[in-house]
Amino acid sequence: MAEPAGLKRNSSGQAIVELSAVFGDRLSTAQSVREQHGDVLTWHKGPVPDAVVFAETSEEVSQIVRICRQYQAPVIPYGTGTSLEGHVAAPFGGISVDVSRMDAILEVNAEDLDCRVQAGVTRKQLNSYLRDTGLFFPIDPGANASIGGMTATRASGTNAVRYGTMRDNVMSVTVVMPDGEIIRTARRAKKSAAGYDLTRLMVGSEGTLGVITEIGLKLSAIPESIAAGVCPFDSIDSACNAVITTIQMAIPIARIELIDAETIGAFNDYSNLDLKVAPTLFVEFHGSEQGTAEQIALFGEIAEEFGGGPFDWATLEEDRNKLWQARHDAYWAIKAKTPGMDYLATDVCVPISRLAECVSETQNDIESTGLYGPMVGHVGDGNFHVQLAFDRGDDGDLRKVRGILERLAARALAMEGTCTGEHGVGMGKMKYLDDEHGPALDIMRTIKRAIDPDNIMNPGKVVEV
Amino acid sequence: MAEPAGLKRNSSGQAIVELSAVFGDRLSTAQSVREQHGDVLTWHKGPVPDAVVFAETSEEVSQIVRICRQYQAPVIPYGTGTSLEGHVAAPFGGISVDVSRMDAILEVNAEDLDCRVQAGVTRKQLNSYLRDTGLFFPIDPGANASIGGMTATRASGTNAVRYGTMRDNVMSVTVVMPDGEIIRTARRAKKSAAGYDLTRLMVGSEGTLGVITEIGLKLSAIPESIAAGVCPFDSIDSACNAVITTIQMAIPIARIELIDAETIGAFNDYSNLDLKVAPTLFVEFHGSEQGTAEQIALFGEIAEEFGGGPFDWATLEEDRNKLWQARHDAYWAIKAKTPGMDYLATDVCVPISRLAECVSETQNDIESTGLYGPMVGHVGDGNFHVQLAFDRGDDGDLRKVRGILERLAARALAMEGTCTGEHGVGMGKMKYLDDEHGPALDIMRTIKRAIDPDNIMNPGKVVEV
Repeated sequence: MAEPAGLKRNSSGQAIVELSAVFGDRLSTAQSVREQHGDVLTWHKGPVPDAVVFAETSEEVSQIVRICRQYQAPVIPYGTGTSLEGHVAAPFGGISVDVSRMDAILEVNAEDLDCRVQAGVTRKQLNSYLRDTGLFFPIDPGANASIGGMTATRASGTNAVRYGTMRDNVMSVTVVMPDGEIIRTARRAKKSAAGYDLTRLMVGSEGTLGVITEIGLKLSAIPESIAAGVCPFDSIDSACNAVITTIQMAIPIARIELIDAETIGAFNDYSNLDLKVAPTLFVEFHGSEQGTAEQIALFGEIAEEFGGGPFDWATLEEDRNKLWQARHDAYWAIKAKTPGMDYLATDVCVPISRLAECVSETQNDIESTGLYGPMVGHVGDGNFHVQLAFDRGDDGDLRKVRGILERLAARALAMEGTCTGEHGVGMGKMKYLDDEHGPALDIMRTIKRAIDPDNIMNPGKVVEV
Repeated sequence: MAEPAGLKRNSSGQAIVELSAVFGDRLSTAQSVREQHGDVLTWHKGPVPDAVVFAETSEEVSQIVRICRQYQAPVIPYGTGTSLEGHVAAPFGGISVDVSRMDAILEVNAEDLDCRVQAGVTRKQLNSYLRDTGLFFPIDPGANASIGGMTATRASGTNAVRYGTMRDNVMSVTVVMPDGEIIRTARRAKKSAAGYDLTRLMVGSEGTLGVITEIGLKLSAIPESIAAGVCPFDSIDSACNAVITTIQMAIPIARIELIDAETIGAFNDYSNLDLKVAPTLFVEFHGSEQGTAEQIALFGEIAEEFGGGPFDWATLEEDRNKLWQARHDAYWAIKAKTPGMDYLATDVCVPISRLAECVSETQNDIESTGLYGPMVGHVGDGNFHVQLAFDRGDDGDLRKVRGILERLAARALAMEGTCTGEHGVGMGKMKYLDDEHGPALDIMRTIKRAIDPDNIMNPGKVVEV
């Protein structure tokens, strides 16, 4: 990757001296801390940051950014480090701004179904705080990610089919801009037509336009009734077709996840379950007692039509949690099947009518390489994940992995889909954006250059400038 | 208003010569045509454009923009002219680009619940085209606006409480940028994390960043059951409180509109109805037969709790249409009450918990000026409209109107709301953006300058540069 214009290598040195004077032992240059703030969950092993600063307020982040700007040192926001495409690596060195101590829930306006949190608040922390209000924050990417990181990567996950993604659930953001200015993009009105939608521009900008420090979120009412179920199918194809019909019939399903047979086997071992080893849908319905019953009946008919069953229903919270925990532990369950291997997780998203085709072509492709690569997916949105096992030291494996990734992105684009439904671009998917966006990519570059002329905000991610 | 930098007055002359050579009689400089493309529904009477070109494709719009750019002539997109804040006026002259002939429905992907249309397609045209698919496009701002204009102003309307606004229902846009380049902001995947959200940046940009020529839209399934009802209340306050409780209980109501007593009287006269003259809620429920019945029962209890009733239910399509047509004709019904007066319609949006307070303070404010100013509102979103009658020739009236508008915006902002929920900024609300956005407004300016350095795209609207 070319050195971005305007960035001087080793520019962090002077910034560190000054930051150290301000932040004392909240700045660390210890190798272990720097490594921990590199990437742990991704196969993109970039250089680690030169230092880590633990910020506690938007004003402190502003101070950090001003100092970094003075010395042209890269600024890399860090939440919980659960991103998958190299978002927190430091390809040009720089300062990792760890916001995990910014964990205050600033306000909950139960009567307006909204709240405001600092960027380091995690989704589980927020939901346990909300427990007595009758409200919850529905976006659930699996990992206990920070709200700041989820906002920055436009996260979604299992509930998105019903509740939308971070795009739909973020009402406003407070952002420290590259010049240190602190802006807030919107107030608390449910809708507004007052100017450009800076909120949505920041959601998914992956730290390349500024550091998100506070987030206003829409909340949802905890449904009166929740029912979750597990339904095996004869083939991936039948399962996908049941999903397609469910979506086309506009059943307001809250979750509908595809898990391939391979992964079900891994779940059984890792989470001590006893599921039939077959392509399976995990589903969840939210509504009134009556509404949920109605949805279950309709979905049951659809599943039967495509040869699915028997169902196993869980209405007890404990049973449901066990199910979804297993789903969320997919990465670890699969990893446990082939200890010692390296892993990468990737995702694409296609129009739902192309889902079965895209999944089965991808499965054939992986099989033909001989690599181990189970699949799971938020299939109600046409979004699915591939997790590939490989040996980082084996050039043959690396070639195969790169080939699979390239063909997967090309396949999704050819089906009018996107190279990433929810993981984001980071360092890993920049190469596909030209094919996906064409001349629109130039407009993204124009925006990046205008807002961050020195290219100090998370350089080397999303768009090359 | 200061002359924007880079724009030469009377720059349109040479552009018109060249456009005329290309577009022949699809370019008009006739006074009547130019006036018709000025503003008809707004009190912002700006100068009319120097010429109108009727474009038929994105490529033609690109050609127009390239010629205008060469001569630094302003480009003003025009759909149906139903905007309310001076969006289509020509304060610095220029060329009105009329897209009404771009009325092709390019594709309907019923299995994916989406479609793609040219910018001049109107919402009624789209819905009648969709009739046999079981799908509909839910956004309904009242006027039979063009999809392009609705996208450009981030329109919403009566259904937004359930289906969201244009922000939520536009999947992609094709835009002719200020340099004539044609970009498309996204493909057909239901979600994507592949770079900056240019779709949302364009939605609500009011023609100041480019000309929207094609739009990809999300569609919704026509509900199995629809029931609409009318419920009078003793006071605006009680009606508002019934709305607040309905929203807080998360009843998935499809429409919930407040109409004040004054406007109900106007409806009775204009639409030949026989409604009780009182503050009234118009409501609509969508769902399965069972679901709708459940919602009606719940809402009935809430209304009763706040002294509302008796209900008048309409499940026949014909009766429902009559009701909603009356609601959509509010502007004309009110106008008919005081013939010869000038009118302006404005809107604000506040968190729902502040709705009753904001509505009643505004009502008192208007009363104290002695002006006639009925109110209606999409109150499920905290959004309401004031329609003020005044005499354009009377300086006292004008002073009163300006005072009401300023206090209304300030009141909404003080309640953490926005100066416009759905009408947009245009020329009319630019003055409030500094108070609403603070330093975030500078970021909007930075984006405008970067994307449209010559300031030829609808200059004098949204942000001053």
